Amino acid sequence: MATVNIYKWNELGNEEKARILTRSEVEIEEVMQKVKEIVKDVKENGDDAVIKYCKKFDGVELQPSEFKVSEEEIKKAYNNIDKNLLKAIKRANKNIKIFHAAQMPKDIEIEVEKGVIAGRRTLPLESAGLYVPGGKAVYPSVMLMLSAPAKVAKVKNIIACTPTRTKNLDPATIVAADLNNVTLYKIGGIQAIAAMAYGTETIPKVDVIAGPGNPYVSAAQRIVATDAKTKISFPPGPSEGMIIADEFANSKFCAADMISEAEHGPDSAGILVTYSEKLAKEVRIHTEFMIEKLPDIRKKYIEENLKKYSGIILTENLQQAIDFVNEYAPEHLVIACRNPRRLMKKIKNAGTICLGNWTPITAGNFMVGSNAILPTGKYGKNFSGISVDTFLKFPTYEILTKRGLKRIRSDLNLFCDFEGFPGHKNAVDVKF
Amino acid sequence: MATVNIYKWNELGNEEKARILTRSEVEIEEVMQKVKEIVKDVKENGDDAVIKYCKKFDGVELQPSEFKVSEEEIKKAYNNIDKNLLKAIKRANKNIKIFHAAQMPKDIEIEVEKGVIAGRRTLPLESAGLYVPGGKAVYPSVMLMLSAPAKVAKVKNIIACTPTRTKNLDPATIVAADLNNVTLYKIGGIQAIAAMAYGTETIPKVDVIAGPGNPYVSAAQRIVATDAKTKISFPPGPSEGMIIADEFANSKFCAADMISEAEHGPDSAGILVTYSEKLAKEVRIHTEFMIEKLPDIRKKYIEENLKKYSGIILTENLQQAIDFVNEYAPEHLVIACRNPRRLMKKIKNAGTICLGNWTPITAGNFMVGSNAILPTGKYGKNFSGISVDTFLKFPTYEILTKRGLKRIRSDLNLFCDFEGFPGHKNAVDVKF
Repeated sequence: MATVNIYKWNELGNEEKARILTRSEVEIEEVMQKVKEIVKDVKENGDDAVIKYCKKFDGVELQPSEFKVSEEEIKKAYNNIDKNLLKAIKRANKNIKIFHAAQMPKDIEIEVEKGVIAGRRTLPLESAGLYVPGGKAVYPSVMLMLSAPAKVAKVKNIIACTPTRTKNLDPATIVAADLNNVTLYKIGGIQAIAAMAYGTETIPKVDVIAGPGNPYVSAAQRIVATDAKTKISFPPGPSEGMIIADEFANSKFCAADMISEAEHGPDSAGILVTYSEKLAKEVRIHTEFMIEKLPDIRKKYIEENLKKYSGIILTENLQQAIDFVNEYAPEHLVIACRNPRRLMKKIKNAGTICLGNWTPITAGNFMVGSNAILPTGKYGKNFSGISVDTFLKFPTYEILTKRGLKRIRSDLNLFCDFEGFPGHKNAVDVKF
Repeated sequence: MATVNIYKWNELGNEEKARILTRSEVEIEEVMQKVKEIVKDVKENGDDAVIKYCKKFDGVELQPSEFKVSEEEIKKAYNNIDKNLLKAIKRANKNIKIFHAAQMPKDIEIEVEKGVIAGRRTLPLESAGLYVPGGKAVYPSVMLMLSAPAKVAKVKNIIACTPTRTKNLDPATIVAADLNNVTLYKIGGIQAIAAMAYGTETIPKVDVIAGPGNPYVSAAQRIVATDAKTKISFPPGPSEGMIIADEFANSKFCAADMISEAEHGPDSAGILVTYSEKLAKEVRIHTEFMIEKLPDIRKKYIEENLKKYSGIILTENLQQAIDFVNEYAPEHLVIACRNPRRLMKKIKNAGTICLGNWTPITAGNFMVGSNAILPTGKYGKNFSGISVDTFLKFPTYEILTKRGLKRIRSDLNLFCDFEGFPGHKNAVDVKF
């Protein structure tokens, strides 16, 4: 039976604190060297290397002509998909588009001084490469979370990669991709990231790579960000969820939310942080009870991460709990306290926040329209989740009138002289 | 005397094309390994390593207590700065703030469906580390370009590093930092980037590092982006400027703008692209003539980069010139064509664009308010220049009412079942 530990934060040793705060980032560091070699192989040998690693890692023998999901497979997917699931997918897609359309930055043009105009355009990146994990399960929801914002941003060439072990993909993932005009390739893992970053004979090179993945996929994204000039949304990592709760929280709801994050995989984290020892103990009981009712594979994942990254943190008071949240920077945070909106103002670092009793993390994962592809592993301190910005760029421009240039000319001269740029000065002088 | 080459793009070999398009990125790759060792040393040995490299690279012996610019030095700087330059700095700072304040994204909250609310907050990063190059010259304008947007974004802890060879800094850089509440450290190069990324006994660790630099500084930023979880604005590189011109362009203006970019350093690039052979030849003459009038050091830089990265590209027609611009993705682009606004719509990749005859690159570098710290080395394809976004994050949130959750419940169930997440499903069910 699973054991949920209650850690008194004040009494915890530095090593245990570090393990909980660092979570599975360690594992990513460990695989870096190996991943580098595979990335290099794909960079140098293109499709041949992709074929090799699809066989090695996914056990599937694919020809380059089979990488891409065909028109026929798309047609079949629409025929085979459960009609209710299709409706749910379309509804989720619509909601994501509504929320992300509201994020689209407008073009800006202002006359900073008379005759001195500065502007900023909003332009889509030309191409995007989405990564949708697979293997353990299929994730049409992830396809929507990545492709709908890219579509809203008006990216012309959107491709996606997802692994297969059978040469086939599930109909829901195919349909989710097709709804947003995504060209879908049946390759996964490191080889997919490298293929999209450098391009191969079959797979086009893209401007941005976005999407979650295991430590290998995450390491590959970090490598190509530096080596291939690919923009990456943020280095992805295993799922994390945290609940901050006061003594009035519903202990069952807390337990269920914790489990919903911990069930992702052996390296996920589901954490409750509270100053109420009573609540902590109640949540422990509910959690252990609920875990028992899960299928074996999920139970195994949770038992595994309960030993390392998941558990209950007991703090001295609410402020210490808030500080812990901000230091941890969880991917998902549930605020199970009175007046959650007020408490949210004190949360600086979290990918997304679920407020109140009727907002399980599950809702945001699938249907609310907010993005569920969010920074993990403390990256929430300085990165944001997937948004239209992931797929946009903002070139600026300047327009001066003759009188505008005259007006700022003497100040330009001062800067040019002080910084030692006679050529810059001449570029102004030559006009008069 | 300097020689400006006219390259007929159609007749150029692949190797020459690649050299022009790749520009000095090659040099960054070459220094990577060496930079890695220095970064690691600073990570492990903090201030001691910083002291060592300041001595080694800048020839200056600093104690940790001397890193930070003191209150007294700030007071002295205000006393010593030229009063007209101070006015120019304040005016530039104001213009940058006006333009960047216009970029601030608003908080968003929308009811996606009845009882289903999604929101997005705009929050400043907690800390920012700015890098202002030095050594060859001093750049108070760069300090403004980095610190004004950070201030507008409301970053609480803003620090900056800039090198010194004399234990002193110029008054203008000190004042520019102080105007935006920046704590300034007199250290530069790789050791400064590493110090801000990992923190030392004296220098605080920051959430984002932004700023231009030489290939060593650029390599260091790329390394810490992966290793220290530091957000970096974009990997910086040497300055580049391009002029796209038709046969009606003013050849003197084109020559002067080309030179103003090429004078930055031996690895900079100043390029004219035009389909008019007549213009190309005129610009060549003016350029060669203007170079002669520059001081020796600038002349030497330009002669150097004219052999490698700078020159005139002659295309078959306007469309090929536009295609070249988009493939190159220049940091600065001047549109010296009729109807520049219409032509701008065809430019997808450029950091910033100067339109018309009265807009030299110089103006945007110092006084227009648009940012002059821009992506180089083709990064303009997928990155944007410094903006308030560099210093912001956008956590989202969800709020559901009981009826809102009921409304989407069956669709949530479908997703949970299809993707195999019983724990996610339970987190909804447990509430009813």
